[in-house]
Amino acid sequence: MSAPTDLPTSGAAVGSAAEVLARCAELDLYSSHPEHLERVYLSPEHAAVNRVVARWMTRAGLAPRQDAAGNQYGRREGREPGLPALLLGSHLDTVPDAGSYDGMLGVLMGIAVAERLGDRVDDLPFALEVVGFSDEEGTRFGKALLGSCAAAGTWDPAWWDLCDAGGMTLRTAFEEFGLDPRAVGTAARRPDELVGYLEAHIEQGPYLEEADASLGYVTTIAGARRFVLEVEGEARHAGGTPYDRRKDAMVGAAECITAIERMVRPSGCIATTGRIEARPGAVNVIAGHVEVSLDLRAPTDAARDAMWEDLEAELQRLCAARGLGLRVTETHRAPAMPCAPWLTDAVVSGIVGTGDTTPMGLWSRAGHDGMAVGAVTDVAMLFVRCHDGVSHHPDEDVREIDVARGLDAFEAAVLEVAAKVAAS
Amino acid sequence: MSAPTDLPTSGAAVGSAAEVLARCAELDLYSSHPEHLERVYLSPEHAAVNRVVARWMTRAGLAPRQDAAGNQYGRREGREPGLPALLLGSHLDTVPDAGSYDGMLGVLMGIAVAERLGDRVDDLPFALEVVGFSDEEGTRFGKALLGSCAAAGTWDPAWWDLCDAGGMTLRTAFEEFGLDPRAVGTAARRPDELVGYLEAHIEQGPYLEEADASLGYVTTIAGARRFVLEVEGEARHAGGTPYDRRKDAMVGAAECITAIERMVRPSGCIATTGRIEARPGAVNVIAGHVEVSLDLRAPTDAARDAMWEDLEAELQRLCAARGLGLRVTETHRAPAMPCAPWLTDAVVSGIVGTGDTTPMGLWSRAGHDGMAVGAVTDVAMLFVRCHDGVSHHPDEDVREIDVARGLDAFEAAVLEVAAKVAAS
Repeated sequence: MSAPTDLPTSGAAVGSAAEVLARCAELDLYSSHPEHLERVYLSPEHAAVNRVVARWMTRAGLAPRQDAAGNQYGRREGREPGLPALLLGSHLDTVPDAGSYDGMLGVLMGIAVAERLGDRVDDLPFALEVVGFSDEEGTRFGKALLGSCAAAGTWDPAWWDLCDAGGMTLRTAFEEFGLDPRAVGTAARRPDELVGYLEAHIEQGPYLEEADASLGYVTTIAGARRFVLEVEGEARHAGGTPYDRRKDAMVGAAECITAIERMVRPSGCIATTGRIEARPGAVNVIAGHVEVSLDLRAPTDAARDAMWEDLEAELQRLCAARGLGLRVTETHRAPAMPCAPWLTDAVVSGIVGTGDTTPMGLWSRAGHDGMAVGAVTDVAMLFVRCHDGVSHHPDEDVREIDVARGLDAFEAAVLEVAAKVAAS
Repeated sequence: MSAPTDLPTSGAAVGSAAEVLARCAELDLYSSHPEHLERVYLSPEHAAVNRVVARWMTRAGLAPRQDAAGNQYGRREGREPGLPALLLGSHLDTVPDAGSYDGMLGVLMGIAVAERLGDRVDDLPFALEVVGFSDEEGTRFGKALLGSCAAAGTWDPAWWDLCDAGGMTLRTAFEEFGLDPRAVGTAARRPDELVGYLEAHIEQGPYLEEADASLGYVTTIAGARRFVLEVEGEARHAGGTPYDRRKDAMVGAAECITAIERMVRPSGCIATTGRIEARPGAVNVIAGHVEVSLDLRAPTDAARDAMWEDLEAELQRLCAARGLGLRVTETHRAPAMPCAPWLTDAVVSGIVGTGDTTPMGLWSRAGHDGMAVGAVTDVAMLFVRCHDGVSHHPDEDVREIDVARGLDAFEAAVLEVAAKVAAS
């Protein structure tokens, strides 16, 4: 890991898209792997990136602080001290073998907007805060949104015993990072100290690119439901067991997987079966037990739940027809988080100001910090076009022109929120 | 592990079905696991079982010897010393969590037949040998038929470096067992010292039970072809990637698995896809790479190979239609081993002698030691009905009446072979 460089990061203009992109590239250096980017919660790289971001916040006129859950904040007071804050941000942690923009772009755009606003913040009817959440991806402890849940006051004490791959508990990781687990409650923000939360993020999908649009706004952050489908058959000898005697859990699971695609594809929902495990898993033994993961998303919880009801009935029917058992376990259910119309209007105005007179609204198929933050304040999101819909991969890419338009839109949105708050 | 008991094993009549079954149960005690049966090549249990079987051979009038590959033989000379031998036998090793009969039944039936023949062997036109092969299942080193390949002279020096799950090479396992790897060639039998090989084995299938028959004869031991099918797609974000952008290797693999069943089922061949592995294997990532194993068997090599040709074309077509790559690697190909008609006639006569005037001929869907032994001498097999086609499982079961008929048939087959040899 290299030491933080001297400021400024590059020769790019202060608060410019070029500077934001140069900073994204600089954060790539803080990785636990020499050859690809991986930066997980409560790691040495997390601590280092917080320090770098704190210096950038300071340069932008924001007073930095790290909260009790490792989230990095910067704050500048508005027209009087102690006003509720408008929060701009995203997250600074990554998946394994990550790209440079998922999360980081939104934090650095927030800092750039603060820098561009400069002394104008002093007249705003709210304080301006930028936050780099410490854990959104959940890579280390298998539970996503730890940082933003701490900020939203929805921390679950059961999480203390979650273990990372090396067997270290979340509690011990807190202590090793220099945080006091007993103080995590102090990270919680109160509704009355927040105006709202605005997040910029790469789209992680191809829709803006297909529409030749730089920017879009989010209507709802979809909540996934996740299931484990366990198909139960009989493990028997591959040679000796004729077809009419087989209860082949592998063929049953395969039928379920193709049925899920066939039914979900035309529905507007989206389903993924990414994980499979067959037992005993031998070349010459019929699979007796197969587990398949199902991740199901839709624009609304109602659409998603109706789809699941249809799916479950069909999967049960398919398995029963083969004499197979099917056990379904729900492992995760997140409600959709609708973006607040009044905040979203400000984002739309900001996009219109960049010359796009009919901004595209999208439901976010991916999860975001806003799902957690929405428990404590209103949320809106600005999407920035990314290359070929790629995310969670080193090929993640954004264009400088789109970031430049994003900064303009984001800055304008903040001023629009100010006008709304002042008028209310 | 308990010490070998005193002989005789039980109160059952010498050479009877009851005694054979009691001996099968006694061999269950020689297991590496306290709660289920697992006895692998070159283990302490292998050594112990060879000692027990050697004592039973001695009681049956057979001179015991362990060969350079750990196979346990017993021999009684025929009407003059040094005649070629008729070999009766099967194997003494097991799969994990095995039943009591797969392999062991054939060895103990061979010993019982020798005991029943008694001094009559002295007049036979061949020596009588019984063999308990040391490795047929391949459980420990992943390569089946090691014991019978040594006996057939088809030992491949490349096998010395095969490792077990604990990382021990086959070479070291030989040495730890007290065998000299350099001497393995001395285990090879020459064609001129053998008359043929007769093996009794549980059917491992349901056909005799369905036909209400105790016994059957084998026409051919089918040789499996095994493949790894690698479906190549693109690992992308489960939320952000719409259906028309997906190259989902999991759905492609699932389509292949169901297509294999659909095409093979009506063909008379049999195919099994028992193992699957998806990468990256995450709940929220579309699978980019899925590997599926395929085991394909048929009554003849020609039928099997024609089936594979059709299958491969269809699987390539299915994957191509989804923009997926499909790479096929053949990992195993065993030719079918047709049983020798003249030896099989003797087995058929033996079965007819038990009162079944139209014995059932079956192709063996499972592999057997005869596939290896066939390289050096003629082979025939007697199948004994088993319960519900179950094998490779503690529920493996045979009826005493079927074993009794099997012993009668096996003894008669030996005498019929003697008549044929004498007449030739």
